[in-house]
Amino acid sequence: MNARSETLIETATRLSDAVTQPFPASRKCYLTGSRPDIRVPMRTIQQTPTQTQHGNEENPPIDVYDTSGPYTDPQITIDLLCGLPTVRSEWINERGDTELLTALTSDFGQQRHADPELAHLRFAHLRTPRRAKVNQCVTQMYYARQGIITPEMEYVAIRENVNLEYIRADPRYQKLLRQHPGEAFGAALPEYITPEFVRAEVARGRAIIPANINHPELEPMIIGRNFRVKINTNIGNSALGSSIAEEVEKMVWSARWGGDTLMDLSTGKHIHETREWILRNAPVPIGTVPIYQALEKVDGKPEELTWAIMRDTLIEQAEQGVDYFTIHAGVLLRYIPLTADRLTGIVSRGGSILAKWCLAHHQENFLYTHFDEMCDIMRAYDVAFSLGDGLRPGSIADSNDAAQFAELTTLGELTQRAWARDVQVMIEGPGHVPLQRIQENMTKELTDCHEAPFYTLGPLITDIAPAYDHITSGIGAANIGWYGTAMLCYVTPKEHLGLPDKQDVRDGIITYRIAAHAADLAKGLPGAQVRDNALSKARFEFRWDDQFNLSLDPERAREYHDQTLPHGAHRVAHFCSMCGPQFCSMKITQDVRDYAAAHQLTDDKTALAQAMQDKAAEFIQSGGELYRPV
Amino acid sequence: MNARSETLIETATRLSDAVTQPFPASRKCYLTGSRPDIRVPMRTIQQTPTQTQHGNEENPPIDVYDTSGPYTDPQITIDLLCGLPTVRSEWINERGDTELLTALTSDFGQQRHADPELAHLRFAHLRTPRRAKVNQCVTQMYYARQGIITPEMEYVAIRENVNLEYIRADPRYQKLLRQHPGEAFGAALPEYITPEFVRAEVARGRAIIPANINHPELEPMIIGRNFRVKINTNIGNSALGSSIAEEVEKMVWSARWGGDTLMDLSTGKHIHETREWILRNAPVPIGTVPIYQALEKVDGKPEELTWAIMRDTLIEQAEQGVDYFTIHAGVLLRYIPLTADRLTGIVSRGGSILAKWCLAHHQENFLYTHFDEMCDIMRAYDVAFSLGDGLRPGSIADSNDAAQFAELTTLGELTQRAWARDVQVMIEGPGHVPLQRIQENMTKELTDCHEAPFYTLGPLITDIAPAYDHITSGIGAANIGWYGTAMLCYVTPKEHLGLPDKQDVRDGIITYRIAAHAADLAKGLPGAQVRDNALSKARFEFRWDDQFNLSLDPERAREYHDQTLPHGAHRVAHFCSMCGPQFCSMKITQDVRDYAAAHQLTDDKTALAQAMQDKAAEFIQSGGELYRPV
Repeated sequence: MNARSETLIETATRLSDAVTQPFPASRKCYLTGSRPDIRVPMRTIQQTPTQTQHGNEENPPIDVYDTSGPYTDPQITIDLLCGLPTVRSEWINERGDTELLTALTSDFGQQRHADPELAHLRFAHLRTPRRAKVNQCVTQMYYARQGIITPEMEYVAIRENVNLEYIRADPRYQKLLRQHPGEAFGAALPEYITPEFVRAEVARGRAIIPANINHPELEPMIIGRNFRVKINTNIGNSALGSSIAEEVEKMVWSARWGGDTLMDLSTGKHIHETREWILRNAPVPIGTVPIYQALEKVDGKPEELTWAIMRDTLIEQAEQGVDYFTIHAGVLLRYIPLTADRLTGIVSRGGSILAKWCLAHHQENFLYTHFDEMCDIMRAYDVAFSLGDGLRPGSIADSNDAAQFAELTTLGELTQRAWARDVQVMIEGPGHVPLQRIQENMTKELTDCHEAPFYTLGPLITDIAPAYDHITSGIGAANIGWYGTAMLCYVTPKEHLGLPDKQDVRDGIITYRIAAHAADLAKGLPGAQVRDNALSKARFEFRWDDQFNLSLDPERAREYHDQTLPHGAHRVAHFCSMCGPQFCSMKITQDVRDYAAAHQLTDDKTALAQAMQDKAAEFIQSGGELYRPV
Repeated sequence: MNARSETLIETATRLSDAVTQPFPASRKCYLTGSRPDIRVPMRTIQQTPTQTQHGNEENPPIDVYDTSGPYTDPQITIDLLCGLPTVRSEWINERGDTELLTALTSDFGQQRHADPELAHLRFAHLRTPRRAKVNQCVTQMYYARQGIITPEMEYVAIRENVNLEYIRADPRYQKLLRQHPGEAFGAALPEYITPEFVRAEVARGRAIIPANINHPELEPMIIGRNFRVKINTNIGNSALGSSIAEEVEKMVWSARWGGDTLMDLSTGKHIHETREWILRNAPVPIGTVPIYQALEKVDGKPEELTWAIMRDTLIEQAEQGVDYFTIHAGVLLRYIPLTADRLTGIVSRGGSILAKWCLAHHQENFLYTHFDEMCDIMRAYDVAFSLGDGLRPGSIADSNDAAQFAELTTLGELTQRAWARDVQVMIEGPGHVPLQRIQENMTKELTDCHEAPFYTLGPLITDIAPAYDHITSGIGAANIGWYGTAMLCYVTPKEHLGLPDKQDVRDGIITYRIAAHAADLAKGLPGAQVRDNALSKARFEFRWDDQFNLSLDPERAREYHDQTLPHGAHRVAHFCSMCGPQFCSMKITQDVRDYAAAHQLTDDKTALAQAMQDKAAEFIQSGGELYRPV
């Protein structure tokens, strides 16, 4: 081990405190399923009591969905060199339909494994990969169609509910459960998610559980229109980019702030080794675009790509544990000319690689012609398809055009071919779309792709705000999520401009958590409003710390508050910096209630409302002159 | 003059370079109307040529709506001590329906004017105020109903078009004019705005031109559903807050980034003097909430408010030149009990002040009972009503409730009463509303308030993201703007937490410019897509500087880009930092086009598309085997 490797490993094993410290007032807890090894994480946020004239009133703890993995569990010692605990190993093993291989199957994997030059970069505790036994299918869709409820399915059912059944039964939550009816555009969100519901949704392809048998560290999650809207984040070094250690830290950072899945879009050197480090330490599903790596193997020359190279890459990555592959199999030769008149041509990297290949060879896209073989690989590891929209619009002008929608119909055809082989599928979507054209995207996707989950990038609703494209796209994302998109791929402020740093990633993720949650509220996801209600109650009662702790980004909320009112004492004071100590609307409203209660009325609010309505009616009858100032 | 005053004046007269430097590659220009003193500003952004194999192709300059006022005009010397040029004086004067007063009418104004203690704070060149002659009405609505097209109306017509007639006639813009059909939800946006159209919209109350006769520095603008969506920004010191000089700088900063109007919400000391400084230097309409100042006059005790104090305050501010007043006249006694069951009660400051007053006196809201007298004051100066939603929801839970909608019906009644006196009106709206309940707000406002322009705060579409409420509200704002809201009141990242600094204001404004522009695109505002198209073309052609210069925030776009690629040379290179020099989708797409053109096809794109479609058809007929790799 030379000096360079020591440095690398050292960095990699020491995550910064910023990515691992527990959230304030929060406790990591686990709900156990029907077997003791189904332990579903969530985060419980404690609240302080409300101070009233009659003493303290308790505010119950609020449970929230938790993507952060073991990193925020103080009980678990993190050792990046060993990777995370393998929560799914036993489930996979006991199904008895897989075998441990004696070696890596892919040529490239073997070559990297044997290369002594890479020893200093390589993850130390490589496991032997696992694969379906001959003629077996090991996908969650296959099991679902057999009527089998896997531990993964039960896990996600528990996870989606976030303790809702207990909350409903606990009278302390009664008022917090108040929620507006949703408008779900045909989605059918059940009041309570059962494992059987999960199974049925996966069986009919309306949801996927990306969970490669070689990624047993994964905490299962589900992507589908009848579940919580999810968000994906992207990381990846580039030729100008960052190191392995930085990428692992970014992955943990992404999971911390709420990334449900993560795509490793690395294009630089050591792409294989980086991926291994990430997977072994990733509690979230990892997606890739295998054609990026395949292209590196042919020195960046698209026309030299072959099915053999792609096939080897798919197997290489499947055996590392990648959970879903973006595959641009819908970029057909006959669709390419449809982009010639576009303002911004083909902006998808995958799409342009394949377009160039097709033109160079005057042949049909080899991912299309070899699609069934890809299915056969992916069903042996349970890698899900994320069918890429290689012809997605790169500008408002190009939205919803013939090229985009032609590809979408092909993605629908491919969906059915994948489903025929029990391979899970989601469909990627745009891109850049103005507000009034977003719904058409969703409607067409549902129709053309048979309700396979939609997974969209934004969309950006205008092109004129580089440096703010987390916002331009977050607006589109909230809308398309509301209309039915299952997962939203985040965009950072650096989109179109540069590589995001950690703060950009955080801004992108929180923006997308907002969009996803707004969509959940709008669809009427049961229980979605509890956190809003709890936070608003805390705000109204000047429980500043509770307001911060319940928010999506407690650290920044506190920091912004303290910039104006830096004294600790103010944080418990009954006023805020917008109005100053003498003049605050919330304070006045409380005074209104207190005044009304003290002078004439009970403080039972319903009775108060009734009494005041009576009084108002009297007032109106009297012509407005009944009550005089004392 | 003591040391303190010198410091103050000195600061006030020296705006920082950050707020006055011209935008990059931009030229301030003016379009002249039917008379030489109608000079309508806009900003022209120059572009660099596209480099092609056949030489350089010109990219035409792009004109954009410009709110920044004389501050970005290098021809104009700014002197904050003297105030801006009075572009409207002659128009007001020649109408002959106003008189110059010999002194301020309001008691408070006179008192402040006479106070020697305030000399060091006072704007130096106070003008004598102007007022309508007895029994005259001087509102734009009055003129419009008389069939008169005022210079203000012609000015806004020219301003709204942003040179569209010339652009349409110039072949260089042909491709940039490509635009998707809008969905305008009943709005009727003309292809081209004429002065007569402006007059008709103002006459029927569907649009307002806030333009107090005592604010002649104002560059007129229009607020209405059939015009560009506008945004308002707020500034204001507070008891914990900032100085006069800081407020003036903030006003200029706000106009620079795109604030169409500005509300001065100061609540601290020297509120009168601060307002004078702002108005004399403000090219945008200024709004206030007069009850805030009235409350200060009674030492913050709502129950001590009287109509006499309010009346004096209205006159005081009208004679300074405030262009619109937020008036919470719809907070009726009988509606207050409807808020008792709310999660967050009454969160509007104005609403809670009046609620407290009503309860204390057991009397109807004195702004409601004196509404006609208010109209008589406002028509004498042309101050527009912004009818405040004092019962707006402060949380998702309280959205669209009985209290909110009851008040809205009263605002509708008041609208008709104001219109009966030819006073201009807009209607304020929420607040906190989940996505699926936004449209109901817009629909009800149009119905109940007879299409008076809607002016909304956000709405925030979730409560759980303090520190990101520019985004939670920007999502709601884009949607409600699309549905028909005429002006969006911005929200900064510090909302609910603290007082915004300059960067917060910039973030809030750009977010709202995005929302307003997204709404314009979605409604199909003619010409709205030109800037998107131009920027996307620049992006696709790697004209980095043009991409920055065309964006809403050129400085930040450039800064973000340079963080990753700090070398000047890279900014003209044909790749970007996301993919690195060897691998870039836009580069590959260009290669695709070049390849196709060089090998077999013309570079006329339509012919290219046709030829390739033929080739693809051949390919399909042949079963996909016709073309073999060479």
